[in-house]
Amino acid sequence: VAGMAWGANLRDEPIQPIAAAKVTNPAMVELGKKLFFDPRLSRSGFISCNSCHNLSMGGSDNLKTSVGDKWQQGPINSPTVLNSSLALAQFWDGRAADLREQAGGPIANPAEMAFTHDLAVGTLRTIPGYVAEFKSVFGSADISIEKVTQAIAAFEETLVTPNSPFDQWLKGDDKALTKQELAGYKLFRDSGCVACHNGPAAGGTSFQKMGLFEPYQTKNPAKGRAAVTGQDEDRMNFKVPTLRNVELTYPYFHDGEAATLEAAVDIMGRLQLGRKYSQAEIADIVAFLKTLTGDQPTFVMPLLPPSSSATPKPDPWAK
Amino acid sequence: VAGMAWGANLRDEPIQPIAAAKVTNPAMVELGKKLFFDPRLSRSGFISCNSCHNLSMGGSDNLKTSVGDKWQQGPINSPTVLNSSLALAQFWDGRAADLREQAGGPIANPAEMAFTHDLAVGTLRTIPGYVAEFKSVFGSADISIEKVTQAIAAFEETLVTPNSPFDQWLKGDDKALTKQELAGYKLFRDSGCVACHNGPAAGGTSFQKMGLFEPYQTKNPAKGRAAVTGQDEDRMNFKVPTLRNVELTYPYFHDGEAATLEAAVDIMGRLQLGRKYSQAEIADIVAFLKTLTGDQPTFVMPLLPPSSSATPKPDPWAK
Ligand code: HEC
Ligand code: HEC
Ligand code: HEC
Ligand code: HEC
Ligand SMILES: [Ca+2]
Ligand SMILES: [Ca+2]
Ligand SMILES: [Ca+2]
Ligand SMILES: [Mg+2]
Repeated sequence: VAGMAWGANLRDEPIQPIAAAKVTNPAMVELGKKLFFDPRLSRSGFISCNSCHNLSMGGSDNLKTSVGDKWQQGPINSPTVLNSSLALAQFWDGRAADLREQAGGPIANPAEMAFTHDLAVGTLRTIPGYVAEFKSVFGSADISIEKVTQAIAAFEETLVTPNSPFDQWLKGDDKALTKQELAGYKLFRDSGCVACHNGPAAGGTSFQKMGLFEPYQTKNPAKGRAAVTGQDEDRMNFKVPTLRNVELTYPYFHDGEAATLEAAVDIMGRLQLGRKYSQAEIADIVAFLKTLTGDQPTFVMPLLPPSSSATPKPDPWAK
Repeated sequence: VAGMAWGANLRDEPIQPIAAAKVTNPAMVELGKKLFFDPRLSRSGFISCNSCHNLSMGGSDNLKTSVGDKWQQGPINSPTVLNSSLALAQFWDGRAADLREQAGGPIANPAEMAFTHDLAVGTLRTIPGYVAEFKSVFGSADISIEKVTQAIAAFEETLVTPNSPFDQWLKGDDKALTKQELAGYKLFRDSGCVACHNGPAAGGTSFQKMGLFEPYQTKNPAKGRAAVTGQDEDRMNFKVPTLRNVELTYPYFHDGEAATLEAAVDIMGRLQLGRKYSQAEIADIVAFLKTLTGDQPTFVMPLLPPSSSATPKPDPWAK
């Protein structure tokens, strides 16, 4: 996303506009959309990717932690899938390199969809509509977990949110932001939030310690990046979340404990910058953050191909 | 849905074509669609109408009985919401007169959405986008459960599925059905299935005893119509379900115990008509039943207005 691609009017700022999705393989995207919405990828037949990354609600579930298989309480806040393709890695601790690697995770996670890759793929193979669609997309009717995750990732890559008021301003439209929003952005930028929240996603470019000036108090046992590196100094290092559409992705932080943007900004100021903002300053920054809400993906609800008599019958209450 | 409305070519059969939805108030339908998809109408913030009446899957959940609040096991199979506006009453036992009366039920049902009408309405009142939308749809910003159910019902009225192959045949297109499909229809009609499965929905026009020639064996304790009338002779009387889109609404019967259409047809023949069909006859009838799959509602996924800081924070695990 080089500056020049946007033309000469692009302002030189640490956050860049989001580019609209370039769909090179619409048939694969369509297949991935179906899979994203299909609860048959879960043990229960009840939970789909969209259950926890609800695209009607900014790509997350607006719960502190997610409801998983058997109503299990999830360990960590569900991040939005919007613009997740822009991040340097996936998950709060970055343990998946990219969306393809990521998408296999929840299907087999006992606390999420609680299935196995073999059972999920075996289920899809009994659904004639999927067999035909995999064949037409991949040139072969054989369904594998690699193809499943590739298609889901292709769909997720379309889930970008261009054209926010802030992007319009970045591209030179002085009227796109109100005075308060602009003041909020300048405060955000000049007080140093952009050290971490930068790039087109206003985040997702690095792992950073949560709690630099003061430790972050939480009962959530997540170790952050240390779980991946095994290094104790990486404890409480998390992928800096995107601030795109942050108005929609409440509650905030990996533990979901900040209910409002006001609370999140206050904590960020104190813990990450050692700075206590006034109520008026917080209001300005929040006004700016809301200008990061872009065009949400709008698409027709997918119609899922029906099961056949060979399809295993899901039982949500099976022991 | 009078015959003449379809023109002179309409065949005179006990099942009539489905008419496309006439949308008189698109803004109300749009609001109802949002509410149908909004998990904030549930105690947990996780379950929406679409969880159990998934419009990607024929308007039902394809489970024997539904997963409700706290992963509770539902008492009865979730019927499709597709074409439900055509039925004489709502629910398997007909205890709601119409869609408006019905829509209040699940919100407050402890085994489904487990909320109260007051809490649901109170939640909506804190969401500025809803306040504005109720105001523009109803002329007043005050949100009430009556307006909520009216909007949901208006959306549900659009969920009709016209233009199935069988409807094309009814309207005079001889090529719309294969020989087997037509043979299946004639067997269905002439052996008496249409005594109960008739009208545009191929069902939904009466309550009938399940198990006329032989009792229906089930562990499901549902009393059927007797729960409404208090009359013992109404035990095991259920609203005849629509056969529209029955290909998509597996598993079958009020207890969800028939996994396939073949099984359901075999049971119907024996229990309702005292007739044992051959495998070939069953295959013909099933081929016909699949011609009842019409155009599914296709619409853009709704975008839900975000909560405000005044919105109560849902806790799926609250005691
Ligand atoms: C039961 C809830 C649940 C389900 C179902 C679920 N997810 Fe997630 N998802 C989460 C949570 C929680 C995380 C964060 C986990 C972590 O970081 O350790 C996450 C992380 C992600 C991420 C990484 C985003 C980021 O910014 O790091 C992506 C992408 C994602 N999920 C996509 C999917 C896909 C695709 C599916 C379906 C195949 C899916 N999810 C199913 C809850 C869920
Ligand atoms: C030193 C790095 C760093 C700085 C500086 C920083 N942040 Fe953050 N920000 C993070 C990290 C890491 C997280 C995730 C923390 C967690 O979830 O535990 C985060 C999370 C957030 C969130 C919550 C996002 C979500 O979806 O949960 C908001 C809002 C936010 N930051 C705003 C700001 C603002 C405003 C500033 C300036 C006052 C700021 N940040 C400064 C690293 C930083
Ligand atoms: C937890 C699962 C669940 C949820 C959530 C749910 N329903 Fe239902 N719905 C059912 C079940 C089960 C029945 C059948 C109940 C009965 O007949 O006793 C039903 C029946 C219906 C019917 C009657 C259909 C017919 O043919 O008789 C309609 C219409 C309907 N629901 C609409 C809705 C709406 C609107 C919402 C949201 C406000 C909703 N449902 C939420 C499971 C659910
Ligand atoms: C005397 C009335 C009656 C007759 C005759 C009848 N049905 Fe039914 N049908 C019902 C009732 C009532 C139900 C619901 C039973 C239940 O769920 O327990 C039903 C359910 C069904 C279902 C399952 C629908 C669903 O969504 O669960 C199918 C399929 C079906 N009938 C097909 C047929 C066929 C084929 C015939 C002829 C062989 C037939 N029916 C004859 C009354 C009848
Ligand atoms: Ca620059
Ligand atoms: Ca969040
Ligand atoms: Ca069913
Ligand atoms: Mg045909």
